[in-house]
Amino acid sequence: MTANPNRKTPVTLLGLGAMGTALARAWLAAGHPLTVWNRTPARAEALAAEGAKVADSAAGAVAASTLVVVCLLDDASVETALDGVGLTGKDLVNLTTTTPAQARARATWAEERGARYLDGGIMAVPPMVGIPEAGGYVFYSGSRELFELHRESLAVPVGTAYVGEDAGFAALHDVALLSAMYGMFAGAAHAFALIRREDIDPVVFAPLLGNWIKAMAGSSIEQTARQLRNGDYTTDVVSDLAMQVAGTPTFLSTAEEQGVSPELIAPYFALMRRRLDVGSGKEDLTGLVDLLVRKD
Amino acid sequence: MTANPNRKTPVTLLGLGAMGTALARAWLAAGHPLTVWNRTPARAEALAAEGAKVADSAAGAVAASTLVVVCLLDDASVETALDGVGLTGKDLVNLTTTTPAQARARATWAEERGARYLDGGIMAVPPMVGIPEAGGYVFYSGSRELFELHRESLAVPVGTAYVGEDAGFAALHDVALLSAMYGMFAGAAHAFALIRREDIDPVVFAPLLGNWIKAMAGSSIEQTARQLRNGDYTTDVVSDLAMQVAGTPTFLSTAEEQGVSPELIAPYFALMRRRLDVGSGKEDLTGLVDLLVRKD
Ligand SMILES: NC(=O)c1ccc[n+]([C@@H]2O[C@H](COP(=O)([O-])OP(=O)(O)OC[C@H]3O[C@@H](n4cnc5c(N)ncnc54)[C@H](OP(=O)(O)O)[C@@H]3O)[C@@H](O)[C@H]2O)c1
Ligand SMILES: NC(=O)c1ccc[n+]([C@@H]2O[C@H](COP(=O)([O-])OP(=O)(O)OC[C@H]3O[C@@H](n4cnc5c(N)ncnc54)[C@H](OP(=O)(O)O)[C@@H]3O)[C@@H](O)[C@H]2O)c1
Repeated sequence: MTANPNRKTPVTLLGLGAMGTALARAWLAAGHPLTVWNRTPARAEALAAEGAKVADSAAGAVAASTLVVVCLLDDASVETALDGVGLTGKDLVNLTTTTPAQARARATWAEERGARYLDGGIMAVPPMVGIPEAGGYVFYSGSRELFELHRESLAVPVGTAYVGEDAGFAALHDVALLSAMYGMFAGAAHAFALIRREDIDPVVFAPLLGNWIKAMAGSSIEQTARQLRNGDYTTDVVSDLAMQVAGTPTFLSTAEEQGVSPELIAPYFALMRRRLDVGSGKEDLTGLVDLLVRKD
Repeated sequence: MTANPNRKTPVTLLGLGAMGTALARAWLAAGHPLTVWNRTPARAEALAAEGAKVADSAAGAVAASTLVVVCLLDDASVETALDGVGLTGKDLVNLTTTTPAQARARATWAEERGARYLDGGIMAVPPMVGIPEAGGYVFYSGSRELFELHRESLAVPVGTAYVGEDAGFAALHDVALLSAMYGMFAGAAHAFALIRREDIDPVVFAPLLGNWIKAMAGSSIEQTARQLRNGDYTTDVVSDLAMQVAGTPTFLSTAEEQGVSPELIAPYFALMRRRLDVGSGKEDLTGLVDLLVRKD
């Protein structure tokens, strides 16, 4: 067999849920030889017709390629699916959502079995896979060597962002961004609740809200980051912590007037107040970050 | 005296705090005859040198122009400053931050005194005033007639967005957007806390976080608005409420692993769970809005 420079890297994929199926289609469309396995075999049928080889066991699928991508429900299902499967010499890329500690433990587990390990956190939903304009990407962390070697193949379904050798960093970035997104959703839910019983069209209100959030996200997040790095939280704008704490009663009274529970915004206001009690009123809101982190 | 079409509308401004001073400078720069008053007269001195007429009482300032703009600390300070001042025939524009109910009551109060009333909620900080590229604007509500008549003068310091005849709507929009911003800040604070003790540079992390928030804000807020309007919360994406609730333990476990208090994100997750208990798992997160609003 002679090497063919045009031959795409063979990929094995374990897991054909909504995400796995989308990944499989992207690799098939790009011409990668693809071997798939799924616990419930029926989910592989359509892909077989599209050119995937279907293995009848996880071990058989793993044996078919050096590059083995796993996209299962959770860390426990990875453990179950790969239990007793030989991994020596394999390049294991785990796109299953886990906590950072689970990713770190899984990296150790894989290395003990003779595999290189890369962990991934997918910042996309299945309809974004295979569509570069959709902007989806995967955070990768762990073996840099493995990442560099398979960079092109990994970039086929969605973009890639390598965030460090620590195998837990991909999951940490993933969880951090999603947690922040839920905070933003919480703020938006509160805003929609405030206008819910008024004669205000939510569809007219939405772009005002969305543009405001986008405008505030850019500058404030970068300012917070700079201050966390340099340790000086002193504000350079007029609305310092003291002024912002002074403004919170208006927000809480408005919620009360509008018959809206403050449960989603009150915890942040309480934290602002706690920071004012221990920090300086002339700060930005950066000091709240430190109050969230356990000292030990 | 002959009418001069190039003559700019005279403006009276009560209140020369950080914001009032910025507004004053913008009107002076645009050539509007400006009369100012401030409780503490010293704050008017610099403006006098820049061409403002300084009145020695609020009544004197109000007498000087038909268009009277008020930018004081809070609703109580408006009451105090205008106590006993004749307002008949005046166009009163109140840019003081208040609750919607305070704005409505202030509108009634002004109309009873023979004035037309427009309320404003300022979506800008003083450094943005007079700089159109900065994107600041004021929500206006109340007398549409007054708004149309003085539209050009009002647009001098920052942009304008008229949101309805109900005098409370400007304040409601203002508070809703700022509340949502604090939700976004809360999510970002949690994200920064998660990486705080790791070897991750917050300045490298910030654009990842900021871009993610911006990307998520646009589509999700518009989708929520459409669903609130049409009453059908059924999702058209893969990640429905049931899947998202199933994902929350990973976020909470990660916070625990990283030594981060979940106080800013847990309330939203609890609300997701409550909605799953009463709604359908096949929904988007829109139903959470309704859970926040008191039924009566
Ligand atoms: N969908 C998204 O929007 C999205 C976005 C970002 C990240 N992710 C992550 O991607 C991963 C897969 O998500 P998905 O949407 O594809 O999930 P899914 O549609 O629920 O599919 C789950 C997959 O895991 C398999 N599985 C579950 N338990 C198993 C076990 N004990 N042993 C072997 N296989 C098992 C399922 O096999 P069966 O077919 O036999 O049940 C199926 O292939 C998850 O970690 C998810 O968090 C998903
Ligand atoms: N600064 C911002 O970033 C910002 C952004 C959006 C909206 N706003 C709103 O704009 C309004 C003014 O804000 P600001 O930043 O200019 O506040 P500020 O710098 O604290 O100034 C407060 C003003 O209110 C006056 N005042 C307070 N109590 C008074 C009373 N009892 N009688 C008469 N005058 C009284 C003060 O007069 P003295 O000089 O005599 O104390 C001063 O002129 C507030 O409602 C604020 O919420 C501000």
